[in-house]
Amino acid sequence: MTDRQAAIQGDDVLSDSDRRGLYKVLLSRRDVRGQFLPDPVPDEVLARVLVAAHYAPSVGFMQPWSFILVRSPEVRARIKSAFEAANDEAATMFEGDRREIYRSLKLEGILEAPINICVTCDRDRSGPVVLGRTHIPTMDLYSTVCAVENLWLAARAEGLGLGWVSIISEPALKEILGLPETVVPVAYLCIGKVSHFFARPELETKGWRKRLDLAGLVTLDRWEGERSADLSHELMKAQIAAESGGLA
Amino acid sequence: MTDRQAAIQGDDVLSDSDRRGLYKVLLSRRDVRGQFLPDPVPDEVLARVLVAAHYAPSVGFMQPWSFILVRSPEVRARIKSAFEAANDEAATMFEGDRREIYRSLKLEGILEAPINICVTCDRDRSGPVVLGRTHIPTMDLYSTVCAVENLWLAARAEGLGLGWVSIISEPALKEILGLPETVVPVAYLCIGKVSHFFARPELETKGWRKRLDLAGLVTLDRWEGERSADLSHELMKAQIAAESGGLA
Repeated sequence: MTDRQAAIQGDDVLSDSDRRGLYKVLLSRRDVRGQFLPDPVPDEVLARVLVAAHYAPSVGFMQPWSFILVRSPEVRARIKSAFEAANDEAATMFEGDRREIYRSLKLEGILEAPINICVTCDRDRSGPVVLGRTHIPTMDLYSTVCAVENLWLAARAEGLGLGWVSIISEPALKEILGLPETVVPVAYLCIGKVSHFFARPELETKGWRKRLDLAGLVTLDRWEGERSADLSHELMKAQIAAESGGLA
Repeated sequence: MTDRQAAIQGDDVLSDSDRRGLYKVLLSRRDVRGQFLPDPVPDEVLARVLVAAHYAPSVGFMQPWSFILVRSPEVRARIKSAFEAANDEAATMFEGDRREIYRSLKLEGILEAPINICVTCDRDRSGPVVLGRTHIPTMDLYSTVCAVENLWLAARAEGLGLGWVSIISEPALKEILGLPETVVPVAYLCIGKVSHFFARPELETKGWRKRLDLAGLVTLDRWEGERSADLSHELMKAQIAAESGGLA
């Protein structure tokens, strides 16, 4: 084998089965808040899920992420209090019926899930000048979010539910977890086995917001540009397929 | 079937084959800059890739993303100029050898790829108060990045290369694509069939930066907290498996 051959992916065409697997995982992924079981997650499974995150794309190959596994009941109790304080503030921002619905939603599983993971972004990981971050300074945060999405998909494939807790103050999270000034807590995640996965997002089922038509979100060449009739037709077909459970 | 059954995913345990498919896609995904072929991408394939993006998680089910398909040669020429201006500035930020290597890297495929897509985030998509965005205002940008990562994985599964062009000024992108004040161009992507995919990230092969050991990035309960010896062992095993091409 030449160096050039070694440098290239041999099985460069993925199979239909791999592709179907990906789409199945993408479409069955949910934000889980209420169905966690106390069963422990084996280290071997957790390791695969974290490797999936670590192989996310990163700007300048910076790999700015770290993962704090939060298992201590004391630390979790403090996180839960920080959530509750933020959630009480949040509820007052909605009016009338919306406030009632908001109050009725379960929005986290901090104490029930067997594992919590904080995914952080170390903005100094590879020095002050980072290839690809020179003009869009948030690129390292975006890379970290790609790692979160990979982690989420791998968790679903392993049969684990995951919920992203975003109703919490960043300074509180930083203080509780002892993060240095230059490290951002990008995502606080609750992970574990679940009794079941819902067929649709809970906010959709509960009437909070509808799934948008994708064809209305795609334009040509500029914001509010023209649309391609052929592509719009294919988008509608593919979205109907996704709603009935299968993209292939 | 009861309402409750209908609301729950029937085939809630994904198969080993689905899981292997996901990991294969995750590990073979690359940031592609130089191997684009001019072949058109069928609308049917493009539609599946965009649906994959649209089924990403979003804060408060906000779905803040839109997709601008940039096919016009005039618009692409303007984007390419904006890249070149930024790239010249970027090169001066590196010193000595690093500047030489930087200059030698091909960092975009704006004109060669058959499709460019700008993925945007409309921060006003669902009014000023968004469930889950009340305390971390960047959550809608993060949701949009999840859509980008889904799109990237689906593209790889469909045999399409994708490269994220981040060396460009956001105000220039906004002006060229006519984005309103409240819409952020989160990612500018080049997509198309490719002659081949590299086995490893180009920045790794070219010695820009090494792949980090994941076990060094995982701690318990706090930043620089303790490590679990058992988990570290599993992380090392899983990373070796990933490097030799297979997580299962």
